[in-house]
Amino acid sequence: MTLPGLALFYGGLVRSQNVLSVLMHCFTIACVASVLWIVVLYTMAFSDGNAWLGNFEHLGLKGIVSGDLTGDFPETVFIMFQMTFAIITPGLIVGAFVERMKFSAIILFTILWLVVVYAPVTHWVWGGGWLFEMGVLDLAGGIVVHATAGISALILAAMLGPRSDFPKKLHIPHSPGMVMIGASMLWVGWFGFNAGSQLAANESAGMTMLVTHISAAVASLTWMAIEWIKNGKPGLVGIVTGMVAGLATITPASGNVGPLGALIIGFLAGLVCYFACGIVKNKLRIDDTLDVFAVHGVGGIMGTILVAVLGVEMFGGTGVESIGGQLKTQFIALGAVIGWSAIATVIIVFICKATTGLRVSQEAENTGLDQTEHGETAYNFE
Amino acid sequence: MTLPGLALFYGGLVRSQNVLSVLMHCFTIACVASVLWIVVLYTMAFSDGNAWLGNFEHLGLKGIVSGDLTGDFPETVFIMFQMTFAIITPGLIVGAFVERMKFSAIILFTILWLVVVYAPVTHWVWGGGWLFEMGVLDLAGGIVVHATAGISALILAAMLGPRSDFPKKLHIPHSPGMVMIGASMLWVGWFGFNAGSQLAANESAGMTMLVTHISAAVASLTWMAIEWIKNGKPGLVGIVTGMVAGLATITPASGNVGPLGALIIGFLAGLVCYFACGIVKNKLRIDDTLDVFAVHGVGGIMGTILVAVLGVEMFGGTGVESIGGQLKTQFIALGAVIGWSAIATVIIVFICKATTGLRVSQEAENTGLDQTEHGETAYNFE
Amino acid sequence: MTLPGLALFYGGLVRSQNVLSVLMHCFTIACVASVLWIVVLYTMAFSDGNAWLGNFEHLGLKGIVSGDLTGDFPETVFIMFQMTFAIITPGLIVGAFVERMKFSAIILFTILWLVVVYAPVTHWVWGGGWLFEMGVLDLAGGIVVHATAGISALILAAMLGPRSDFPKKLHIPHSPGMVMIGASMLWVGWFGFNAGSQLAANESAGMTMLVTHISAAVASLTWMAIEWIKNGKPGLVGIVTGMVAGLATITPASGNVGPLGALIIGFLAGLVCYFACGIVKNKLRIDDTLDVFAVHGVGGIMGTILVAVLGVEMFGGTGVESIGGQLKTQFIALGAVIGWSAIATVIIVFICKATTGLRVSQEAENTGLDQTEHGETAYNFE
Repeated sequence: MTLPGLALFYGGLVRSQNVLSVLMHCFTIACVASVLWIVVLYTMAFSDGNAWLGNFEHLGLKGIVSGDLTGDFPETVFIMFQMTFAIITPGLIVGAFVERMKFSAIILFTILWLVVVYAPVTHWVWGGGWLFEMGVLDLAGGIVVHATAGISALILAAMLGPRSDFPKKLHIPHSPGMVMIGASMLWVGWFGFNAGSQLAANESAGMTMLVTHISAAVASLTWMAIEWIKNGKPGLVGIVTGMVAGLATITPASGNVGPLGALIIGFLAGLVCYFACGIVKNKLRIDDTLDVFAVHGVGGIMGTILVAVLGVEMFGGTGVESIGGQLKTQFIALGAVIGWSAIATVIIVFICKATTGLRVSQEAENTGLDQTEHGETAYNFE
Repeated sequence: MTLPGLALFYGGLVRSQNVLSVLMHCFTIACVASVLWIVVLYTMAFSDGNAWLGNFEHLGLKGIVSGDLTGDFPETVFIMFQMTFAIITPGLIVGAFVERMKFSAIILFTILWLVVVYAPVTHWVWGGGWLFEMGVLDLAGGIVVHATAGISALILAAMLGPRSDFPKKLHIPHSPGMVMIGASMLWVGWFGFNAGSQLAANESAGMTMLVTHISAAVASLTWMAIEWIKNGKPGLVGIVTGMVAGLATITPASGNVGPLGALIIGFLAGLVCYFACGIVKNKLRIDDTLDVFAVHGVGGIMGTILVAVLGVEMFGGTGVESIGGQLKTQFIALGAVIGWSAIATVIIVFICKATTGLRVSQEAENTGLDQTEHGETAYNFE
Repeated sequence: MTLPGLALFYGGLVRSQNVLSVLMHCFTIACVASVLWIVVLYTMAFSDGNAWLGNFEHLGLKGIVSGDLTGDFPETVFIMFQMTFAIITPGLIVGAFVERMKFSAIILFTILWLVVVYAPVTHWVWGGGWLFEMGVLDLAGGIVVHATAGISALILAAMLGPRSDFPKKLHIPHSPGMVMIGASMLWVGWFGFNAGSQLAANESAGMTMLVTHISAAVASLTWMAIEWIKNGKPGLVGIVTGMVAGLATITPASGNVGPLGALIIGFLAGLVCYFACGIVKNKLRIDDTLDVFAVHGVGGIMGTILVAVLGVEMFGGTGVESIGGQLKTQFIALGAVIGWSAIATVIIVFICKATTGLRVSQEAENTGLDQTEHGETAYNFE
């Protein structure tokens, strides 16, 4: 669900002459990440190795056979499940560079980013690395997925530069209906991410699904209410963006909070991410076009912090003994991961600039990437 | 699947200047119903209480913890599963009021209707209430979902009044393709509703899925055949509407009939619902715009009656000992639920009229709700 | 997922005045195949009978009750699962005759083809028939689904004749975005086909899912690379067509190959099917409009052969002891099934020609089938 979900969510938000390029980015990234995952990323992230990186014993899935188990599941299922995270994470970054980045640069960026950022961070947090050992809480990717993608998206957008008419001209989403269809698929798919993460560990998948749903619903209504109050009209793009913010924010916390915690997280997700969008656009003046940082970065970071508070028994949570101690761990993890993602992204972008080049020509940007990069047009009515 | 499914099914049927408003209605109702379910509806419907209503011990899901079980499942999964019914039921009513009702009125109507109609009726039939005790058969919502939504839709449509050019001008669906995509998602999602309902109770989920599928396929072909004979051309909107009728009609019966019963139900669903659409529009002159009553109301009521006959062993069914006795129970249940839904809907509509107001202005209706209520347009091709 | 998936994949590839007709074909075929499956096909394919055909003891599912098991599953679930193959297989053939075949002929062709080709071949390979006894390998339908559909599509396209302006005028897909959405749904749905087939037999469903995914990803990238090199621009339609080729080709092999085998299969699928498309169009001059033979036929046949080689332990596979012996079995199976499909299709097409007639009028072809056959238009923007 996530591949068409994310692709449609992003595809509906851009102009009609760029929608195919967005679908193409998401689809290509899915293929590249899948192959790379099998070949090298899985063993880097999930084999024993040391605190910083796995070893290379499962290069090309060497030594994985049908009968192997990870917990109660075949290891092959675990490999597939974790692969979906390695697909969606660089997929999220697409929102930062739409309508102007070269297709070759996107592929190169994705490969380097997965190897240098995603695989190591996954090992740190989920693969038995140093943050895992420290007891960091991140059930389904507030740090591994949303913080890494959000920070990298912001930096990439800043280094790539804005679309040529930003911020003077505001382009409206060419198909809010497509945005909504994509968002609905993400909602369903997210249960897989969050509850699936839980299933590998214990019997609490039901509660994880429930709190994920509550957060999404509350964040949607919060965003809608703010739009209604501020603009006089609640819009479809707004309410579904609120939903995505609610999903991103609950993600790291979804294994440790109860319904009350989910309600608070959902409300804060809608509120904070809404205003974060404005700050990035109007204060930082960065053309993070589809708000990857403001929604995923801010949401994921916020959820990673909130779980340390709302995961205590008083709020109906489980697994957090000491708010102070857990907060410290969460902040260390966020600091390390954000720092690493930022530095690595800067270097990767320089490499892309020096090899493939980053941007399409001004003329191509005006015409739209569908035609200039892919030789197709989206809507051909006779 | 149901949220985007229903939204697309309805969204494709309206005019292009109202499609986003329909998606917005479905999405907002999903969020409102989810939050309300957690806060108050679940405990009203499924806690012990008395014959008429649950008690309030689980207000805000108080006292629900990860380990609790309902049958073989965590109670949290049961809460989520039942929540999907509480989302789809008011969602179905959307079809009655599209293209003219105020967004604020829709939200208020949904909240009141869920509290006053849906939660009590669910308790009566599924939550251990008086109809449950009486042995009424309604596996997956012929009474609870389709009869309540159908009747309330008809009354709301009548009280709201028709679109300004009804019935003089017939508007064609702006996107039959979107209708078909939505319908296909509903078909898949419906297996979840019907077979899922069965899973909670026994091992017969496979047969439930099978009879659900048969009914949908037969009803589709029946509707198509009627259109072909009457109009000379079988259309896409027709065949998928037949499918929805087949699903709605088998819903209450899907736990008790066999393949033969499903075939009969599917045929009658296609036949009766097809002509019911014409009767509501041309005889009753009610602008139940997307045929909620004729498809869901008539289908749900018909299936609720048919299960008493086709559920006997002679027709390959299970669970019905005496046709006469079961028929009596089914009729009592239908009478009580229809009566209660009707009276409550009348009162709720009056409350909405007095507070938020019911309809948008004539000018807004002409322009389309996408712009006037939500500030967006659906298709922005450059 | 397959019904809307295939319908959208095909629907996006045709011209805008024919998209509804394609959706209608797929939907109607799904309904017809479902009913036929229940009534007669299931018992023909999966009851004991002899080496050539099942008997008729389960006509109309007579004698199937809720409690019956097939392996670990209720037989009703097996019936439903196998029904999805009986739906998708004639659905695949739609791609060969779009934009010109009469709707009545399509229905008649589908019914005859399912009875004469699909049910017997299924019995031979999966239902305990002579190829099953011979030990042919075809986990999820390289022979049963893709070879039969591919060959029959090629013959039907040749006998039906090309669209009136073929090959002079090349029509571009009216909605590549719709193609991609459909393809993504197929990708997800295919896990159900392949891994589901495995589940009925043993615990290796995880590996089956993994190799299916690898083949699809590698075939996508291969196709994209060829397009990039040959045309200078990688397109969305190309990459997703590569994906479908990767899925079709791995299908018969997905129970016996490991990750390395999947990588090789995916690469060959992208390479060979890409050039097969050109050969059918430019050398054979057959208007197999949406490349059913080149993608499904060629892919399915190739995979059926490759499994005999890549299924040995040396390539990380399982279940193949002797390459030579297995190759012989695979070739016998392919020869028999291709021969039978071809002869039967020729006869069936003659029957259709003599009764319903095959093609719409030239005028109807120019106008588009949506209006002339179904009385609808796809995109009605006000």
